[in-house]
Amino acid sequence: MARTQITGGFVITAAEEVHADVLIEDSRVVALAAPGTQSWTADRTLDATGKYVIPGGVDAHTHMEMPFGGTFASDTFESGTRAAAWGGTTTIIDFAIQSRGRSLGEGLDAWHAKADGKCAIDYGFHMILSDVNESSLKEMDGLVAQGVTSFKLFTAYPGVFLSDDGQILRAMQKAAGNGGLIMMHAENGLAIDVLVEQALARGETDPRYHGEVRKALLEAEATHRVIKLAQVAGAPVYVVHVSAEEALHEIATARHKGLPVFGETCPQYLFLSTDNLAEPDFEGAKYVCSTPLRPKEHQAALWRGLRTNDLQVVSTDHCPFCFTGQKEMGRGDFSKIPNGLPGVENRMDLLHQAVADGRITRRRWIEIACATPARMFGLYGRKGTIAPGADADVVIYDPSAEQVMSAATHHMAVDYSAYEGKRVTGRVETVLSRGEVVIDRGEFKARAGHGAYLARSTSQYLG
Amino acid sequence: MARTQITGGFVITAAEEVHADVLIEDSRVVALAAPGTQSWTADRTLDATGKYVIPGGVDAHTHMEMPFGGTFASDTFESGTRAAAWGGTTTIIDFAIQSRGRSLGEGLDAWHAKADGKCAIDYGFHMILSDVNESSLKEMDGLVAQGVTSFKLFTAYPGVFLSDDGQILRAMQKAAGNGGLIMMHAENGLAIDVLVEQALARGETDPRYHGEVRKALLEAEATHRVIKLAQVAGAPVYVVHVSAEEALHEIATARHKGLPVFGETCPQYLFLSTDNLAEPDFEGAKYVCSTPLRPKEHQAALWRGLRTNDLQVVSTDHCPFCFTGQKEMGRGDFSKIPNGLPGVENRMDLLHQAVADGRITRRRWIEIACATPARMFGLYGRKGTIAPGADADVVIYDPSAEQVMSAATHHMAVDYSAYEGKRVTGRVETVLSRGEVVIDRGEFKARAGHGAYLARSTSQYLG
Amino acid sequence: MARTQITGGFVITAAEEVHADVLIEDSRVVALAAPGTQSWTADRTLDATGKYVIPGGVDAHTHMEMPFGGTFASDTFESGTRAAAWGGTTTIIDFAIQSRGRSLGEGLDAWHAKADGKCAIDYGFHMILSDVNESSLKEMDGLVAQGVTSFKLFTAYPGVFLSDDGQILRAMQKAAGNGGLIMMHAENGLAIDVLVEQALARGETDPRYHGEVRKALLEAEATHRVIKLAQVAGAPVYVVHVSAEEALHEIATARHKGLPVFGETCPQYLFLSTDNLAEPDFEGAKYVCSTPLRPKEHQAALWRGLRTNDLQVVSTDHCPFCFTGQKEMGRGDFSKIPNGLPGVENRMDLLHQAVADGRITRRRWIEIACATPARMFGLYGRKGTIAPGADADVVIYDPSAEQVMSAATHHMAVDYSAYEGKRVTGRVETVLSRGEVVIDRGEFKARAGHGAYLARSTSQYLG
Amino acid sequence: MARTQITGGFVITAAEEVHADVLIEDSRVVALAAPGTQSWTADRTLDATGKYVIPGGVDAHTHMEMPFGGTFASDTFESGTRAAAWGGTTTIIDFAIQSRGRSLGEGLDAWHAKADGKCAIDYGFHMILSDVNESSLKEMDGLVAQGVTSFKLFTAYPGVFLSDDGQILRAMQKAAGNGGLIMMHAENGLAIDVLVEQALARGETDPRYHGEVRKALLEAEATHRVIKLAQVAGAPVYVVHVSAEEALHEIATARHKGLPVFGETCPQYLFLSTDNLAEPDFEGAKYVCSTPLRPKEHQAALWRGLRTNDLQVVSTDHCPFCFTGQKEMGRGDFSKIPNGLPGVENRMDLLHQAVADGRITRRRWIEIACATPARMFGLYGRKGTIAPGADADVVIYDPSAEQVMSAATHHMAVDYSAYEGKRVTGRVETVLSRGEVVIDRGEFKARAGHGAYLARSTSQYLG
Repeated sequence: MARTQITGGFVITAAEEVHADVLIEDSRVVALAAPGTQSWTADRTLDATGKYVIPGGVDAHTHMEMPFGGTFASDTFESGTRAAAWGGTTTIIDFAIQSRGRSLGEGLDAWHAKADGKCAIDYGFHMILSDVNESSLKEMDGLVAQGVTSFKLFTAYPGVFLSDDGQILRAMQKAAGNGGLIMMHAENGLAIDVLVEQALARGETDPRYHGEVRKALLEAEATHRVIKLAQVAGAPVYVVHVSAEEALHEIATARHKGLPVFGETCPQYLFLSTDNLAEPDFEGAKYVCSTPLRPKEHQAALWRGLRTNDLQVVSTDHCPFCFTGQKEMGRGDFSKIPNGLPGVENRMDLLHQAVADGRITRRRWIEIACATPARMFGLYGRKGTIAPGADADVVIYDPSAEQVMSAATHHMAVDYSAYEGKRVTGRVETVLSRGEVVIDRGEFKARAGHGAYLARSTSQYLG
Repeated sequence: MARTQITGGFVITAAEEVHADVLIEDSRVVALAAPGTQSWTADRTLDATGKYVIPGGVDAHTHMEMPFGGTFASDTFESGTRAAAWGGTTTIIDFAIQSRGRSLGEGLDAWHAKADGKCAIDYGFHMILSDVNESSLKEMDGLVAQGVTSFKLFTAYPGVFLSDDGQILRAMQKAAGNGGLIMMHAENGLAIDVLVEQALARGETDPRYHGEVRKALLEAEATHRVIKLAQVAGAPVYVVHVSAEEALHEIATARHKGLPVFGETCPQYLFLSTDNLAEPDFEGAKYVCSTPLRPKEHQAALWRGLRTNDLQVVSTDHCPFCFTGQKEMGRGDFSKIPNGLPGVENRMDLLHQAVADGRITRRRWIEIACATPARMFGLYGRKGTIAPGADADVVIYDPSAEQVMSAATHHMAVDYSAYEGKRVTGRVETVLSRGEVVIDRGEFKARAGHGAYLARSTSQYLG
Repeated sequence: MARTQITGGFVITAAEEVHADVLIEDSRVVALAAPGTQSWTADRTLDATGKYVIPGGVDAHTHMEMPFGGTFASDTFESGTRAAAWGGTTTIIDFAIQSRGRSLGEGLDAWHAKADGKCAIDYGFHMILSDVNESSLKEMDGLVAQGVTSFKLFTAYPGVFLSDDGQILRAMQKAAGNGGLIMMHAENGLAIDVLVEQALARGETDPRYHGEVRKALLEAEATHRVIKLAQVAGAPVYVVHVSAEEALHEIATARHKGLPVFGETCPQYLFLSTDNLAEPDFEGAKYVCSTPLRPKEHQAALWRGLRTNDLQVVSTDHCPFCFTGQKEMGRGDFSKIPNGLPGVENRMDLLHQAVADGRITRRRWIEIACATPARMFGLYGRKGTIAPGADADVVIYDPSAEQVMSAATHHMAVDYSAYEGKRVTGRVETVLSRGEVVIDRGEFKARAGHGAYLARSTSQYLG
Repeated sequence: MARTQITGGFVITAAEEVHADVLIEDSRVVALAAPGTQSWTADRTLDATGKYVIPGGVDAHTHMEMPFGGTFASDTFESGTRAAAWGGTTTIIDFAIQSRGRSLGEGLDAWHAKADGKCAIDYGFHMILSDVNESSLKEMDGLVAQGVTSFKLFTAYPGVFLSDDGQILRAMQKAAGNGGLIMMHAENGLAIDVLVEQALARGETDPRYHGEVRKALLEAEATHRVIKLAQVAGAPVYVVHVSAEEALHEIATARHKGLPVFGETCPQYLFLSTDNLAEPDFEGAKYVCSTPLRPKEHQAALWRGLRTNDLQVVSTDHCPFCFTGQKEMGRGDFSKIPNGLPGVENRMDLLHQAVADGRITRRRWIEIACATPARMFGLYGRKGTIAPGADADVVIYDPSAEQVMSAATHHMAVDYSAYEGKRVTGRVETVLSRGEVVIDRGEFKARAGHGAYLARSTSQYLG
């Protein structure tokens, strides 16, 4: 039995801030104690004096190696989970994809094959439903039993991922029965495609038009719609990557009525804006993702939503494409730019910067980045907190170190940083994943394959 | 030149209530005067002492001879407009239908052919778009020029009338350009069809299930959606047959923001309810229409909406099917019941009953039943008021006469009344259409073909 | 019997726009007719070709000779009503004031004495309640019987006009019983006085601080409060001089629920802003009134409220004080500046400018400036429209004439214009008051004392 | 050094549910550990197998020995804190009262004198401001320094506790500066007193009229008002004893905007209703408190508010008066019934019943009853949780024991129970206060005077 103690740190969870020593046995946390009150024998002592001791981050929305528009997201499960660890994230939940005409099981198998034996940290899967029919609906029950307890559908991307409202309703009804959680990409894709076509016809091909055609009103509309469908189905719904104040308003209105409606936003919507999309020389392409970046005014609304708990989770929607060779596919036609941004490595630091800026409290930082995503997706108890019995996914975080974000220094397999040059306060020092040191003061120590698949329970965030 | 004077009456318009004599020359009103102050010479004097003198009703939503589910609405233009006249309505706007795969023009021609030379009163056409494509969009401009200035689309009836959100957006954009007004049937038909299928599978075949599956939330959802699409298009939108409080709320919210969003309700939603749909022995089928009748609580909200002007128009959606032979097609499967109710003859009286009950003022009665529908659909100046220069469509109305509504006495070509046995106060006495007496104290005097086609201007209710 | 005909004009009322000739016998309109269809014999013919023929304006909120802070509003009933006529207004409703410790009757008598025999146009009175007690509550019934059917109370001006919430509730209950309409000055005066004291203590004495301490939130708060008190009392309520978007929001919310809540705004809130209050050299004092002018953003909300009918009336709150000698009393202490602006002469023209600017329609112009104030305060049928039987208060208005507003040319007894130098399109040409020409193409023709006291019925705007 | 271990229990805090052993040294928790993983030596072992181990309750709203209407609340600090301990509550925050014309300090001294040496559990004080003036405002700073960091004002009880809006604003401004938290009793007392007088004049003297005159709308109005005043002051505000859905709506609306507005409700509003007030034979008097009990429909809204965190705290407003001799003072005049209910002993059990009924989760139970009140009022770290370093205020709770609430068995010094005969699941087994056993399986073991005064920090719930 290996025993590790972390001493002298300031332990922060979603609920508590205490000076405490932490004792780990093998892969689990077994005790917390007031500093110096216990005389533990340990194989290893990590001194966290002057540092924060926080749960490892849980990033509930990543797309490693995702196929999109004829190319693939540039991070493999190996590179992407390694980068996640560098950034203080010890769990990701990625998306397995059902292909049209194929079963859910085939899709899930394919994603297991990609991830198996490659990951530096633990991982789970959501399932993307591209083809809702009698057979795939039936398969959902089995997936829940296998620990794939959340299912993503789209009101966008007609012909690719879009499900119609009848299909969405059926999937929600199914989830209402088996405890699954439906995740929705909420944009009115049919209307957006009209606007895309019209913009291109007018010669508006620059990346900034990506932001103009994917209107906030059309995100809000679809958000409202999926909430109503969920209400009809008697199911909860989780709206991914909320970027528009108007969409947030729909979620907040539903929550005020007591409906089980949840919202996630991402660092890019909190820190970036249409100003980035408008960067010259096609640089805007680096910031093309859907939902799109919004005008700066929306940021304040999103921060407020995080404070009022109308938004519960910050995930990354990490889906990197290199500028050279990938983003460039859309020169002359913004609709051909692969959609997605890198970010899995930056999330914990960016949100700590928000703490430093007074936007959120330290506890709220841990709540939106660790505890709630774990609870939302059935990992709580194991992930998202530091408590007796929990997996020893622990980060020693230096709140006063400074760093500058850059593609030159990051570990994601992508040739640019969305936050190039951004100076932030706070940095990961040491990362443990199930008791093993993965990052040790600037050194990567894990092996590919340390990370294990997480069969998840159904959501623990519901009533 | 024929001169008619109407003396001694109490003239009510949307704005004024005055004791005044009215002088008509040929087809037009030429003067109003304080009683007895003018010595007009007239060919004919109608004594309206103790009576109301009101503009003829404008029913902006009828479906004469409409094909539906393999049968046809039982009123022809001849029988239907005659019944309208009996009920104090002197203008209808019916719906010409584009068939899928055919042009708008073909549809319009077909409806002209049905109506031409048959009508007792004046009539215009809206156009139903069943097939929005480049060609039909282009045709819209021409129709506006021909006086067909309003276009109806559906979010319901997949495979028959439903347009997808992209098509709706395109039609709205077109209307924003040419001044046309988009009318929306707003129910989420894709979701409803799922619920229909599930209900039937559970053996829920009775007419009352028609009301249960077409959920208020799904009317509200679609209402919200078309409002957002209109906002994106920069176009006004008119929502037909609003029946659910939740849908009304969406309209009211939009109007509070100053958006050009309009709502129509119908007498059946104000006076009938799901109690009727639940009548035994398949009698509920008589009340099957879409949007469906709602639980009684919704009525109060609709009346309030009429008072606050969140609803502007009361039309009938007159679309009668005989119980015997037509409604009966849906025995054992409510989804096969032809959708629609008779009502063109009852509207003015039912709304006067609301005046008697203190729900609306007399002026508001005229506003929602005559003035606003005329203004909304480009007929004002000619129709909907009594003013110098207006068409002499005038009703002498006895506010204290009593009558009992019944299929035994009504003039609509349908074998039941939706209001059988209902006692109301108020009755039409005399009806003039463009100066000609159509109804004369219980006698029908017009000829088929008196009624003329009305080329309408674009909406006069905007700005 | 004197007969006047107005020929060739374009008659605009709240509801209709028609080319029509108008026949007047003595003091009343007796007929409208399509142009040229009648051969009236008339003593006088006024040619209105190319002009508008509109009802005389009804200004429901003026303060002639009002005592305030040791001085008096500079317009007497004689000068003020003359100026009103010049501006196309033919009716004012002024405020008689109860002094603390005195009866309503005494106050009303004093105001009758001021006005009697002096006015160029007709006038009525609202009653200001400064001292709500058993005796004054009882007197309210008698006043309603005498045609003083509206009562103003204040949540502002502690120690002078302020009634506490219990007194307001009692007055509202009384009005609910006798049909009176409670008008509220809604600002939280107790809170404002704290802020005034603190601002002065900080040396913030300039007029612009008047706008800062009388916060929009405190107008909204009081507006919300009086609406709730009215709801408890089961009474309607009319909020005077709404200037803040937040206050308008409270009114709109109440109206959406169907509550009988009404709002008035004034031209100064639509055309002026805190920019004026901040004019240097104490010029800002010219714009000191309460509620105060607001930042420009509020204007758009007020215009929207006028369009959505969340605001129903535009009155002036005309209460002029000369800059020299009166406004100057507040040099060094903004709280000593007499509150009020001149405007009774400018209202019709400013609102016509809004028509020219596309903010409101012509009919809405007449509705908010003539028809609704008449109806709201029990004058409809006589005032506010052009219809058989109505008082012949008629204005021939030249919609294309241009003018520049200026103290040099206006007729109000005050040494400055709040709109100095403002160029507007449209000008009054001829004004008739009860059939008598008062203004005749630039000439004042009436005599003091032509104007008669108007005993008003209870509000005609309810239900 | 005394060491106690609690073994085998299920530790529930606001954030975590873990099987864990708890180690206490002297008065503090020093460690939590996975069951059986540590070999602690302890002086005493409490076996909690099959039981919950929860933080002691924090009741932030009690009134021991409070003078009201010529009598005193029947519980002394001795009897009341003992009863609290029996019910699993280990901290109360009571209200010291400033008398009109006296200083805050005098009031605080008087309350210290009442409590000192009497209490079974720890206690703090809020300060009631009855007389806001320059001097008392100045004193507030000193009180914050002494650990009295919250101040209660009233919009109710004119002539006794009511502060006017100017005074409230000043107190809020002061609190914004010194970190104090303003607590508001929000009812429009001036309006209510009018309704009371009118009800009594109509002979409506029964207790149930207490509920009718203190209208929900008037609670909502005052709630809205104090929120706006707080917004003007830039201060947070905590609304006590929220009972009406309409008032909750005001709080929720403010919170949705991100304002620091907080709401407390009480068990009586969650479990009792106007049905109780209407109990015959003057029994309704037992349920007279202010804000009053509401119709049952409000309960669902309050539960929803607790779930959505629009309400954050459940306190008792414990203020018992015996039926005999005290409540009876109001026979024949409901306004003379002393206002208040007993409840300090029942709160934890009633809320656990809500857990059993599925209304709230176990963690939410602890959050609203322990963690948030501690955090809200500056006690967190010491009270409200079980964590290394916290005071060892710990309850071993048997979730499956059943009990029947009754005056026959309760420990409060009052002759009736508001929940007489109510059967609930769950019961306190053992209570520790700062490491000392106070309740030991049905035996009271503490001494009066064990409880210590708690100097509180400023609120930890902000930011």
